[in-house]
Amino acid sequence: MSAIRVNGRPSDVVPADDRGLLYGDGLFETVAFHHGRARLWALHMDRLMRGCAALDLPLPDSDRLLDDGRAVAEGRARCAVRITWTRGRGGRAYVPPDRPLPTSIVMQRPLPDDLDMQREAGIDLITVRTELPSGGPLGGLKHLNRLPQVLIGAQCRAAGVPEALVVDRDGCLVEALTGNLVIERDGRLIAPGPHPAAVDGVGLAWLRAAAGDALEQAGFRTDQLQPDDAIWVLNSVAGIRPVARLDGAARPTGRTLRAWQRRWAEDVEN
Amino acid sequence: MSAIRVNGRPSDVVPADDRGLLYGDGLFETVAFHHGRARLWALHMDRLMRGCAALDLPLPDSDRLLDDGRAVAEGRARCAVRITWTRGRGGRAYVPPDRPLPTSIVMQRPLPDDLDMQREAGIDLITVRTELPSGGPLGGLKHLNRLPQVLIGAQCRAAGVPEALVVDRDGCLVEALTGNLVIERDGRLIAPGPHPAAVDGVGLAWLRAAAGDALEQAGFRTDQLQPDDAIWVLNSVAGIRPVARLDGAARPTGRTLRAWQRRWAEDVEN
Repeated sequence: MSAIRVNGRPSDVVPADDRGLLYGDGLFETVAFHHGRARLWALHMDRLMRGCAALDLPLPDSDRLLDDGRAVAEGRARCAVRITWTRGRGGRAYVPPDRPLPTSIVMQRPLPDDLDMQREAGIDLITVRTELPSGGPLGGLKHLNRLPQVLIGAQCRAAGVPEALVVDRDGCLVEALTGNLVIERDGRLIAPGPHPAAVDGVGLAWLRAAAGDALEQAGFRTDQLQPDDAIWVLNSVAGIRPVARLDGAARPTGRTLRAWQRRWAEDVEN
Repeated sequence: MSAIRVNGRPSDVVPADDRGLLYGDGLFETVAFHHGRARLWALHMDRLMRGCAALDLPLPDSDRLLDDGRAVAEGRARCAVRITWTRGRGGRAYVPPDRPLPTSIVMQRPLPDDLDMQREAGIDLITVRTELPSGGPLGGLKHLNRLPQVLIGAQCRAAGVPEALVVDRDGCLVEALTGNLVIERDGRLIAPGPHPAAVDGVGLAWLRAAAGDALEQAGFRTDQLQPDDAIWVLNSVAGIRPVARLDGAARPTGRTLRAWQRRWAEDVEN
């Protein structure tokens, strides 16, 4: 079974003049598949459809994407499936074509080898201050323009850590490299933001629905972070991971973390 | 003769998991070829090499890119050649691989049908206010993260104009959609900026070298634009085009424009 499907057929190549490659003109979602079932699928499709509306892209047929996802995930108990949806070919340089024929690329992606360990023991983060696009029409979207994240990823690699706490020029918490941040303070949950440069996370959307009023959303600067605050990194594929160390300093685990991890396992991964 | 070469061989496809497509992890240059000769080649390669340094990408062999460019331009008196240089495959999601094997994609691109007319009669522009990434390590680079330009291009298409005068939130002139802006006032030339969100243009680099002290560089807001100011759009493929109308209002041609267009024709296109 091919691990990649392009426009619904097994293939491992795309046209060299696809606008996804030429300009990053498209969107993506990375979806957890467990035992052949897509997790948090409705939330992923909701974000993808909102992205299509913002970029004026034709909407995909989500059933066909799901079929492709099941096909590339076949035989794997757990894996991630990345769905890329581009504007396809054509147009005049940056100017998009009148009637785009999008390209769908659905591929299997491995989960981190040590994911269970990361959830249990926590992960190390470094703080990375960055100039991210300050929102506008692209704010919140999971689009293909990810060079800022690639540069942050290179800093993480150099520091030997898997994730970063990304802050803007003013010291406001934006997000983690691959997920959203949650601060746990005295049992209360605070989602920093919403920051205009952060991706509108599917894992966070789940937590918002599950936690209700127990999850507060508020702008949050690094200088507001207290030594007793626990930090979580939350994304739809890796779930909830505690931060063990931030910039080398140990962080507490958070007294509600394990209960939320169990809830995640029951709701999302069961 | 194939119009596309991938990694030095005729091909019209790239791997579906190339990081250029997954994240926009790469750079590009669009080079004018006239009668088989690449124009302003050294300036294009200089910008590409600076981009590689900024993104920690291996440097391309410029002679091989030039060979590819000649091959795809063969048989065309005038055309453009787009060179894309990506980080290739691999890495762990955003985190780039330790030893990337870049992908080169060299493809022929047509010139606008009405380019001579645009140079003679001028082009119409609309003002587009936009949220562009505010510089940082990506400032000035010709990288593959071009969704802001795609959205501006869609606005141009809707307005029936080929180009835009792009301004930031504060009303400062950034650039045109596909080139840099030059203001001609009483025979003086002013290049707005350098704006941290603007591409470091090859056409402008040529003008800077050719004009010397006659080209001033200065921050420029739209409210500083006077009715008698002429506006040029300058890029390395289309050369110098006067703005005929901005937001529907006629603009003067500029008393030194024709002389500079002749100089361009002699220096660059001869």
